[in-house]
Amino acid sequence: MTADLLFQVQQLHARVAHLLDEGRFDEWPECFSEDGVYVVQSRENHARGLPLALIHLEGRAMLKDRVFGATDTIYHHPYSQRHLIGTPLLLGHDGSTLHVDTPYLVLRTPRDRLPEVLSVGRYVDRLVHDGSRWRIGSRHCLYDNDLVPNSLIYPI
Amino acid sequence: MTADLLFQVQQLHARVAHLLDEGRFDEWPECFSEDGVYVVQSRENHARGLPLALIHLEGRAMLKDRVFGATDTIYHHPYSQRHLIGTPLLLGHDGSTLHVDTPYLVLRTPRDRLPEVLSVGRYVDRLVHDGSRWRIGSRHCLYDNDLVPNSLIYPI
Amino acid sequence: MTADLLFQVQQLHARVAHLLDEGRFDEWPECFSEDGVYVVQSRENHARGLPLALIHLEGRAMLKDRVFGATDTIYHHPYSQRHLIGTPLLLGHDGSTLHVDTPYLVLRTPRDRLPEVLSVGRYVDRLVHDGSRWRIGSRHCLYDNDLVPNSLIYPI
Repeated sequence: MTADLLFQVQQLHARVAHLLDEGRFDEWPECFSEDGVYVVQSRENHARGLPLALIHLEGRAMLKDRVFGATDTIYHHPYSQRHLIGTPLLLGHDGSTLHVDTPYLVLRTPRDRLPEVLSVGRYVDRLVHDGSRWRIGSRHCLYDNDLVPNSLIYPI
Repeated sequence: MTADLLFQVQQLHARVAHLLDEGRFDEWPECFSEDGVYVVQSRENHARGLPLALIHLEGRAMLKDRVFGATDTIYHHPYSQRHLIGTPLLLGHDGSTLHVDTPYLVLRTPRDRLPEVLSVGRYVDRLVHDGSRWRIGSRHCLYDNDLVPNSLIYPI
Repeated sequence: MTADLLFQVQQLHARVAHLLDEGRFDEWPECFSEDGVYVVQSRENHARGLPLALIHLEGRAMLKDRVFGATDTIYHHPYSQRHLIGTPLLLGHDGSTLHVDTPYLVLRTPRDRLPEVLSVGRYVDRLVHDGSRWRIGSRHCLYDNDLVPNSLIYPI
């Protein structure tokens, strides 16, 4: 494990967050592998091995469908998101697969209101290298706050 | 783009934040180039191409004047700041100029009160290398929260 | 100072935070040197050179005792912690000793409640290399918020 590897992971994380925070949702599924998995689950359910998750998407088609729902069909009060992402803790590496664990904080700012914590927790990521770049093979967003202010509309 | 470049940018960002958070405001303008630009603008005005900005300073002389105002002439309730700065997303590099986009969160703690979010958004930076070190050629602090608790006294 | 050094420091910081946030408190003292020091003190007392600190532990035995107290003897409402740690500003390096200054934010999430800021400030660390890895020789957590919501039970 080297500084170069951390650099590559951090740039991937930064890009994913940037796309979500700037509302470029259409580009978000491309950060995942074709069969990429995206799960949002409470810390407690994950710890107990319970399957219930707030969001569970498998494959880019489902990711795209979610984005379509969030941007075109769900009625909601407008808000913007901002991700602060911690240093990825590098846990395992076997060439084309990398396991990292990363704290995150997502702030939500509704129009004309003060910012609030939307979600805080950690990303448990399996990253895969396809020969040219790293993509997310699976991401489990394990949130600490069971109580979510309002709803999660956009991915976190 | 390499890990070394990210290292240099992160050290610059960390140093700028450290000077502001520790109240060493006199040293802040030196982090900018002689003709450095510092703009604090709402995300919405920036997105619409509107010119109105909360703060717009051009050149070190104006930066120094702002610091003088904040520390010596503006009457305000004492508070401390703390910056949490995300990973810079490296967008472009042509030798002596570097474009990076970086999420930030600034917390404000008034004396005997709980901390609160003062500003959250992203820095859009153009960094310039003068032969010995990187400095800020221009920084646009684009904040998500139109509603600011109280006022911005110190730079963010 | 190089990107490699920053990488090593960030992995240490990430690991320490991970152990605390995942409740693996027993492993936390091992991140310190045998005579490691852990102090939690208000920014103001530190600035004035006053000795009073919220927590002051010297040596792994005291660190272990604190962990025992927090997990086995203190009665408190359950909550989880999450650390967001900024970029370490590298201040000095003389081979086996490294001085770094790092912003931190710790969020607390009580069960069925919204997350709140538990502590925000900076870590002033002296790190020591024992031949195989970096450990914390001393950590001063200097918090900005004199007012702490509820109490500090776990280390921050």
